[in-house]
Amino acid sequence: MRAKKVVLAYSGGVDTSVCIPYLKHEWGVEQVVALAADLGQGEDLEAVRQKALASGADQAIVQDAREDFVYDYAFAALQANALYEGRYPLATALARPLIARILVKCAQAVGADAVAHGCTGKGNDQVRFDVSIGALDPKLKVLAPAREWGMSREETIAYGERYGIPAPVKKKSPYSIDFNLLGRSVECGVLEDPWAEPPEEVYAMTKCVADTPDQPTYIELEFERGVPVALNGASLGGVKLVGELNRLAGENGVGRIDMVENRLVGIKSREIYECPAGVVLVLAHQALEALTLPREVTAYKRGVEDTYAQLVYNGLWYSPLRGALDGFIDFTQQRASGVVRVRLHKGTATVVGRKSPYSLYDVELATYSEGDSFDHKAAEGFIYVWGLPTRIYAQVRK
Amino acid sequence: MRAKKVVLAYSGGVDTSVCIPYLKHEWGVEQVVALAADLGQGEDLEAVRQKALASGADQAIVQDAREDFVYDYAFAALQANALYEGRYPLATALARPLIARILVKCAQAVGADAVAHGCTGKGNDQVRFDVSIGALDPKLKVLAPAREWGMSREETIAYGERYGIPAPVKKKSPYSIDFNLLGRSVECGVLEDPWAEPPEEVYAMTKCVADTPDQPTYIELEFERGVPVALNGASLGGVKLVGELNRLAGENGVGRIDMVENRLVGIKSREIYECPAGVVLVLAHQALEALTLPREVTAYKRGVEDTYAQLVYNGLWYSPLRGALDGFIDFTQQRASGVVRVRLHKGTATVVGRKSPYSLYDVELATYSEGDSFDHKAAEGFIYVWGLPTRIYAQVRK
Amino acid sequence: MRAKKVVLAYSGGVDTSVCIPYLKHEWGVEQVVALAADLGQGEDLEAVRQKALASGADQAIVQDAREDFVYDYAFAALQANALYEGRYPLATALARPLIARILVKCAQAVGADAVAHGCTGKGNDQVRFDVSIGALDPKLKVLAPAREWGMSREETIAYGERYGIPAPVKKKSPYSIDFNLLGRSVECGVLEDPWAEPPEEVYAMTKCVADTPDQPTYIELEFERGVPVALNGASLGGVKLVGELNRLAGENGVGRIDMVENRLVGIKSREIYECPAGVVLVLAHQALEALTLPREVTAYKRGVEDTYAQLVYNGLWYSPLRGALDGFIDFTQQRASGVVRVRLHKGTATVVGRKSPYSLYDVELATYSEGDSFDHKAAEGFIYVWGLPTRIYAQVRK
Amino acid sequence: MRAKKVVLAYSGGVDTSVCIPYLKHEWGVEQVVALAADLGQGEDLEAVRQKALASGADQAIVQDAREDFVYDYAFAALQANALYEGRYPLATALARPLIARILVKCAQAVGADAVAHGCTGKGNDQVRFDVSIGALDPKLKVLAPAREWGMSREETIAYGERYGIPAPVKKKSPYSIDFNLLGRSVECGVLEDPWAEPPEEVYAMTKCVADTPDQPTYIELEFERGVPVALNGASLGGVKLVGELNRLAGENGVGRIDMVENRLVGIKSREIYECPAGVVLVLAHQALEALTLPREVTAYKRGVEDTYAQLVYNGLWYSPLRGALDGFIDFTQQRASGVVRVRLHKGTATVVGRKSPYSLYDVELATYSEGDSFDHKAAEGFIYVWGLPTRIYAQVRK
Repeated sequence: MRAKKVVLAYSGGVDTSVCIPYLKHEWGVEQVVALAADLGQGEDLEAVRQKALASGADQAIVQDAREDFVYDYAFAALQANALYEGRYPLATALARPLIARILVKCAQAVGADAVAHGCTGKGNDQVRFDVSIGALDPKLKVLAPAREWGMSREETIAYGERYGIPAPVKKKSPYSIDFNLLGRSVECGVLEDPWAEPPEEVYAMTKCVADTPDQPTYIELEFERGVPVALNGASLGGVKLVGELNRLAGENGVGRIDMVENRLVGIKSREIYECPAGVVLVLAHQALEALTLPREVTAYKRGVEDTYAQLVYNGLWYSPLRGALDGFIDFTQQRASGVVRVRLHKGTATVVGRKSPYSLYDVELATYSEGDSFDHKAAEGFIYVWGLPTRIYAQVRK
Repeated sequence: MRAKKVVLAYSGGVDTSVCIPYLKHEWGVEQVVALAADLGQGEDLEAVRQKALASGADQAIVQDAREDFVYDYAFAALQANALYEGRYPLATALARPLIARILVKCAQAVGADAVAHGCTGKGNDQVRFDVSIGALDPKLKVLAPAREWGMSREETIAYGERYGIPAPVKKKSPYSIDFNLLGRSVECGVLEDPWAEPPEEVYAMTKCVADTPDQPTYIELEFERGVPVALNGASLGGVKLVGELNRLAGENGVGRIDMVENRLVGIKSREIYECPAGVVLVLAHQALEALTLPREVTAYKRGVEDTYAQLVYNGLWYSPLRGALDGFIDFTQQRASGVVRVRLHKGTATVVGRKSPYSLYDVELATYSEGDSFDHKAAEGFIYVWGLPTRIYAQVRK
Repeated sequence: MRAKKVVLAYSGGVDTSVCIPYLKHEWGVEQVVALAADLGQGEDLEAVRQKALASGADQAIVQDAREDFVYDYAFAALQANALYEGRYPLATALARPLIARILVKCAQAVGADAVAHGCTGKGNDQVRFDVSIGALDPKLKVLAPAREWGMSREETIAYGERYGIPAPVKKKSPYSIDFNLLGRSVECGVLEDPWAEPPEEVYAMTKCVADTPDQPTYIELEFERGVPVALNGASLGGVKLVGELNRLAGENGVGRIDMVENRLVGIKSREIYECPAGVVLVLAHQALEALTLPREVTAYKRGVEDTYAQLVYNGLWYSPLRGALDGFIDFTQQRASGVVRVRLHKGTATVVGRKSPYSLYDVELATYSEGDSFDHKAAEGFIYVWGLPTRIYAQVRK
Repeated sequence: MRAKKVVLAYSGGVDTSVCIPYLKHEWGVEQVVALAADLGQGEDLEAVRQKALASGADQAIVQDAREDFVYDYAFAALQANALYEGRYPLATALARPLIARILVKCAQAVGADAVAHGCTGKGNDQVRFDVSIGALDPKLKVLAPAREWGMSREETIAYGERYGIPAPVKKKSPYSIDFNLLGRSVECGVLEDPWAEPPEEVYAMTKCVADTPDQPTYIELEFERGVPVALNGASLGGVKLVGELNRLAGENGVGRIDMVENRLVGIKSREIYECPAGVVLVLAHQALEALTLPREVTAYKRGVEDTYAQLVYNGLWYSPLRGALDGFIDFTQQRASGVVRVRLHKGTATVVGRKSPYSLYDVELATYSEGDSFDHKAAEGFIYVWGLPTRIYAQVRK
């Protein structure tokens, strides 16, 4: 017996459905609690819940986690401008530690001695789940049936049918897809050839450029201390704001990412992401910080951001290094308030205006026309000192 | 007398023209050699040369530096994916150390004891010139009349007229513009308001999205050891390749950058750049490296690249730190060979394919379908060790 | 008239004494307030105060700043293990922003429109003063007579005698010395030859090894959240603790530093420091953190520490980058509590024991004998994944 | 059958001796070639060779690798000033990739299909071996019997006796010790208590302070491009130089390190190292670079060095990141030539003099006395620019 009572992260798909009988019949688990988190994936979660029960779960729970997702995870990563390998806003990666937290809290509430997930042994998500759960409750066991069972897809379906889990009706998509409020992640199929252009069918949140409006859409995003608080002047809660921004950006074809990335487990994979809101938010937030942070802080923060993105991608959300980096970031967000104007057009998102009560841009210093307040004579002295080490180095060389 | 014989970086504009009589009459210089470098700015440089002589230069020289510019400066920066503050491909910044080199070599050839330039005291270019010249020949004096003369534009024109330099015929553009093969830099005028959207008139190398073709343009860029060697299968020299790429990207509206940046002298300024070829080349080069470099090297290189871009921006091209960073970069370029396919469309440039004989992407490791060669059982052991520090930290906390 | 009323940082030496008549008679200052801060330099500050008045100051103030110095500056830097270029605990550099703060507060209190200091134009201290004052009160003028007056030492003394400032009785030491509770900085004289061994006479806080006790001295330092709270079990206030530690370490010859360092203004200088308490405190604090911080945090913190030390050295104490770095550091100090045992002996300080309620050292994981709780089988899986990128890279190479 | 013919890294100890019959009888290996590398550990390696044969090896080889060890590994790490976690000169860690290289070359020469080592599953060395071998010849199998056999020490001895391997005569030392020319690593026993002071018996290369000479020993180390070439004026080969320096430093009690470090596998351990030559060489090399490298290069190199040390410690000697970092380091060593004078005394090593033909120290710029060539007036301009961002930030705040 691997465990007595298990809380299983449940998605409604074949794999996590089969986990239910597998846990009970192969690993001797007495009770399985299926837990589906609403992260804005837009599915009928009551149907998912029913499916869990039909698959043999002793209890099935749906939990709306959208608010937490946006404020505790997505906006924290936004303040870090977190883009994995400079590009991916981490939509899937950010969801995992939250699901882990929900699983752990639920396990503690229902008295389970283990939690389970349906990840296989080659992706990043297994690491994110296992490490997060271990950080939140080191005593809980973590079970990953699909990592161990060694069944092919056909065998998995057949196994499920034995326990009353119907085979999927529609032909399996060639793609592996993850979806939540922050975006979609698509891999597999033809995408495994990094020379092949992704077919239009892999996209769902964003229009192709040919189908986008001919007129640009202008939006204004307002931030308060690094948190988006209004879209086009309307104070929306975070969940609504992200949803609306997904719609606007997606309609204009903004948010597609096609990249070959490095997985934590040491291999490269080709990924397609759609993160309409994520891409626009980071762009706007960076533009705001360009106004409110001095050069040295921005430069140092770029390094912090890169490490932050790696941390999140690598499943270390609950590690103390994130806590320390957040200490750095929190300071920088004290002045990250203001409005950014973005033009969405034919797949492009361009910042065309930015303003802030904390702007360090000083037109009287920057201007080349009258009103210039910069001390021009200072330049010579500065250059003398600035260039001195290079000059000395050159003299010695000769 | 500040100097006996001076080589002046000459552009044909009012300021550098006025420098000629100013050097002679105010600072007692005996001979002024005007030197105009061809960096692909597409002007009639023979006319510029004549203007220098008409302005009182004792000698006027035009030097074609396009080949050196592309290979020694632009492609070196490309290998570093050098983007200042994550965005600007440094078109103007890269030209300055080359002009400095040309000035110094010319001064040594003609026996001048000083070189001169027309920069004022608030920009970055004065630093780039002064520091570069000091590094190349610490004994040469550097004169910067416009930094010291304190004349307004009207006074400058009036001063020039006294010495036969005609007042400019057309009304001065409100913008300050620098232009070479790598791109255009535009500042001043309405751009000084960071909330104002740049008017279409500031752009010259790139079409606005509305005027671009409805059909995408696909291009293939081939690299050898980090150097672009062919465009769409045609082996072009670097100068031609960059020119042609400027044309293709510009026609599709690709290469516009609108940013608030931090100047070296401690102030922020709002800059508009057009770097059609530069933007596409860095994008493609990054995509190639995503295939050929392991994670840890790419991650470390991102830090190197950021420092490299700062160095170039800050006038430290000839500093030993660049030499050391180049040592790092050179190693990484040994395998930066391959082909990248890019779609140019309506202002977007998207990498849609990449291949390399040195590709580290291994479909047998990456795939989730049969043929998978990854050792799934290894994952558990890896995760145990990977998560151990976070788990121990959590245990102590409780 | 450069200013109406000036608060002058006053040390009692010839230079700052001469500043008083100079400010009044050459620069037209109406009132000079001389301010001497007690930073533990152990001088008779009432005598210093009298000297200021005798030199013509309209008012002279002594302010005990030792408590602030230790808690707000020294211990903050200790938490960052701040060692400039890996070695110097920044004793002098940390005092400058505090003196600047005292000057600014005093200027605001007495209604002065300027502050003044006696630094010349080549050292680091002028930068630290000027930048700190500008950050604390950008409207205050900063005057630095000695940077501008161009008088040799002899001329300075002669100028002072004209205004009743007596020439120094004893022959000037060949060394330039700064001294406070955190240590001594010595430069000039024979030290300007980096090949010459410093003569014993340059040291004052530390005994030479030959004169130290033959028996080692063992001490125990207790920290709470990164702050030293007890020495050998006795809860001392910070000022007393540092003083006592200076004595114990100095008697055992600990705390001498001989280095060639890079000044901010672009030149190298040879410096001798004595920082008995500083050296021991950083050593002990690092040893404590080795126990309480996970590897990745310590590794990242090393970079933060290096930047922090550069910031402090370069006069940027009040810059926002320090604020952001402090955000990082504060998080790491939450668990920096415990006791460190140090052996002081013949010029060496060696950590021989460390313990903490937050220790992450787990003997059951570390041991090679029975009781071992580490999962040995995990190693293989970990190594498979850890080595994968290098293995793939090697395969492609062949 | 795990493999047909195996080359085993052989030390002469019980564990590697027992590996021989174990490989043959438990894992079906047909031929075992025992290979002992001479890394200066000062043992009778012919006796070790005989012991291998007596333990059942089909062939036993001793290879003198001291020259390669010093030049290809130790001096490369020295140029990087590589100290793991700021302290440990990596004596053991540097030997592993070299032994791996010898094993792989031998396996290729004798036609073996596998190599083997005696490491257990919790240390760093298994990672260093496995990853290095995988990088050098990804097709070779790596066997680690002791990681899998699960025998206690008593069982191991008993197993060996069955195959004619005599039980060790003397009582086992409580410590686990590794030893080579670069130093000794000691762990286990009482050292597992990080509060306990190490007993004198753990040390072998260094005298305790009480037993060291009362008079200091002065030495001069000469470097050429970062490589030590002479000691006290005598041009010694690297092996002799390191040996002699071990003797001199050890006699003066220099080179002991007591630290709690982070192992790669996620746990902390307490280690005692003795690296007399290593400690002095890094100290001297750093002092030389302080003279020959400009500030920005040294500052950047500190980060490179830290990463380099982590790489080596973590078994990634043959990873491409080391290649890239070496590109950086090589550039910096072009001028790392000169002489450093070090005083060894009572456990302390102090640099007291340094000189170089490439010294950037310029007494005319550094001096405060006559002959000063620094442009003092430049300071004001420099400070204006240097402090501008902090001043603007402060103004906005108010």
